[in-house]
Amino acid sequence: MAGKESSSVPSTPLLKDELDIVIPTIRNLDFLEMWRPFFQQYHLIIVQDGDPSKTIKVPEGFDYELYNRNDINRILGPKANCISFKDSACRCFGYMVSKKKYIYTIDDDCFVAKDPSGKEINALEQHIKNLLSPSTPYFFNTLYDPYQAGADFVRGYPFSLREGAPTAVSHGLWLNIPDYDAPTQLVKPRERNTRYVDAVLTIPKGTLFPMCGMNLAFNRELIGPAMYFGLMGDGQPIGRYDDMWAGWCTKVICDHLGLGVKTGLPYIWHSKASNPFVNLKKEYKGIFWQEELIPFFQSVALPKDCTSVQKCYIELSKQVREKLAKIDPYFTKLADAMVTWIEAWDELNPSGVGAAAGVANGTAK
Amino acid sequence: MAGKESSSVPSTPLLKDELDIVIPTIRNLDFLEMWRPFFQQYHLIIVQDGDPSKTIKVPEGFDYELYNRNDINRILGPKANCISFKDSACRCFGYMVSKKKYIYTIDDDCFVAKDPSGKEINALEQHIKNLLSPSTPYFFNTLYDPYQAGADFVRGYPFSLREGAPTAVSHGLWLNIPDYDAPTQLVKPRERNTRYVDAVLTIPKGTLFPMCGMNLAFNRELIGPAMYFGLMGDGQPIGRYDDMWAGWCTKVICDHLGLGVKTGLPYIWHSKASNPFVNLKKEYKGIFWQEELIPFFQSVALPKDCTSVQKCYIELSKQVREKLAKIDPYFTKLADAMVTWIEAWDELNPSGVGAAAGVANGTAK
Repeated sequence: MAGKESSSVPSTPLLKDELDIVIPTIRNLDFLEMWRPFFQQYHLIIVQDGDPSKTIKVPEGFDYELYNRNDINRILGPKANCISFKDSACRCFGYMVSKKKYIYTIDDDCFVAKDPSGKEINALEQHIKNLLSPSTPYFFNTLYDPYQAGADFVRGYPFSLREGAPTAVSHGLWLNIPDYDAPTQLVKPRERNTRYVDAVLTIPKGTLFPMCGMNLAFNRELIGPAMYFGLMGDGQPIGRYDDMWAGWCTKVICDHLGLGVKTGLPYIWHSKASNPFVNLKKEYKGIFWQEELIPFFQSVALPKDCTSVQKCYIELSKQVREKLAKIDPYFTKLADAMVTWIEAWDELNPSGVGAAAGVANGTAK
Repeated sequence: MAGKESSSVPSTPLLKDELDIVIPTIRNLDFLEMWRPFFQQYHLIIVQDGDPSKTIKVPEGFDYELYNRNDINRILGPKANCISFKDSACRCFGYMVSKKKYIYTIDDDCFVAKDPSGKEINALEQHIKNLLSPSTPYFFNTLYDPYQAGADFVRGYPFSLREGAPTAVSHGLWLNIPDYDAPTQLVKPRERNTRYVDAVLTIPKGTLFPMCGMNLAFNRELIGPAMYFGLMGDGQPIGRYDDMWAGWCTKVICDHLGLGVKTGLPYIWHSKASNPFVNLKKEYKGIFWQEELIPFFQSVALPKDCTSVQKCYIELSKQVREKLAKIDPYFTKLADAMVTWIEAWDELNPSGVGAAAGVANGTAK
């Protein structure tokens, strides 16, 4: 049974050599001091946003590589135009240059949270647990993650579904400053998230969710090429929808390929709210557009011959071009960028193409 | 915004004259002593299972009506054959004779649980909160119930969906003895649920879940006629699937009519596990059958002209007869009983038919 299986694993493998931590930033990474006990043994990929002549300081003792805009332009050449500038969406460049199986990405205003007992939460360890145990996208388990110690599938859960599906994404949450949009920030400037919900759950197949990039882990081999954070920031009509875009695309592709998406634990401590007035300006168009984007993603159908993430993503780019261009010319540009992203991904991950396709074939329904 | 709305309601209305508590039992109701502070001002409907000559003792001071098998036979006449005997599925007779808008049903081995701070949980109050605030079946909110105090919709949640859908069902959980099937009970005899998950969430549209009847509340006007607990127990080839059956039917009809189903808080304390050997005998066929029932319910489509719960349920009975009879002749009998149930419901609730249809019309998509 599920609990037995998980309890027979003596301790969570750290995946030290199989995971990169990707951090987009415009400032010195002092926030890493607090994460030292949890991150120091991992490799960091830092994607420097904005002015490349600025020097970003990284605390002593961390193993990292850093890419600024000049590096991105040099490595990708003309394809660099698919990577956003002056927006944390640039983080997805880090997913592309990584050679590891797993990615954890975190914002530089996120700190270590404490659980209700006062213990510091090792967010990365929980993400790894989430990614290494299956998901349950086909039927809802009322006691939440059945693979956790002390839990299982409840009465009435079909036995044929208890093996679960491979987990592609682990979406973590935030204590203190909740991830609100500008209108909600404006209306509730003082609201803080103090509710610690001790649960991990699978977002059911066919259901979309707002994926936040602040505290997010994923299996790069299973879903990496879908984790494109779109065109945001400098020169674009929209911001703050980078992770949302990636989430919609990712969820639709996970559903198609039979992969699972989890949300819930772990929490990080989100220290400061971004400026709601600036955010409103960035989000403005997205607030309108998403009313058409959600029905689009809810009704997307991917053909059976889309057996790899890349194939799914190229097909999705076609449908974006075909069906969303009527909203705004931006979506034609975005569809182009989606194709460029996949070309760049495959260029930097030549063996990965086959590997990813192979895995996807194995789990495709 | 959501939080503001809920905080402008000073305290949860008790619905004292609008809610019945339905309890199926075969023994004296001493368990009510512990619930006295929470239940005493409500009306109880006790459905006595098994030998009608036995006298069930109800503690002093509770306002109740009690029905035994003789009463059920007298009230329903030949239609009484749709009500199970020697099985807690008989509880649905209580839903039928109630004249209230809301129902809470609880098993007699369920006691008051405590929250992590040690405070006794008023389960009924939480169910009422759940039922009186909307659901969010069309998009997942990662901070769970956005209508709770201190919570809201997160960034990326479409604004057009923030009004939510009327809530038809509130499914509560259990601390101590989890609601496991016989095989899991046999494999994990000592497992106890100690995880208090401080969340209420909507089960997304299109997703089925295992609905447990132990700690369950619903809006009888919105969904009552779908809450039929089937044919179980004496003379039937199956047991312990009564609430599951009701849950599958209810969820499919809620999805069709645009109604929401919530799960999570409140917890009750489930005191004792039923005998796993007895349970295995009861569940045996269900374990096989549900492998075909789940795909059936996942693919059920109700026509647009099914605008009331009754119409939906009759349509569902036709599909059960048509598509499930091949599994076992039991399903033909069950389809007949589904029709009888609706006839009996409408007989006992003559005005309720129009009322339910009217409400359902208003919320149908």
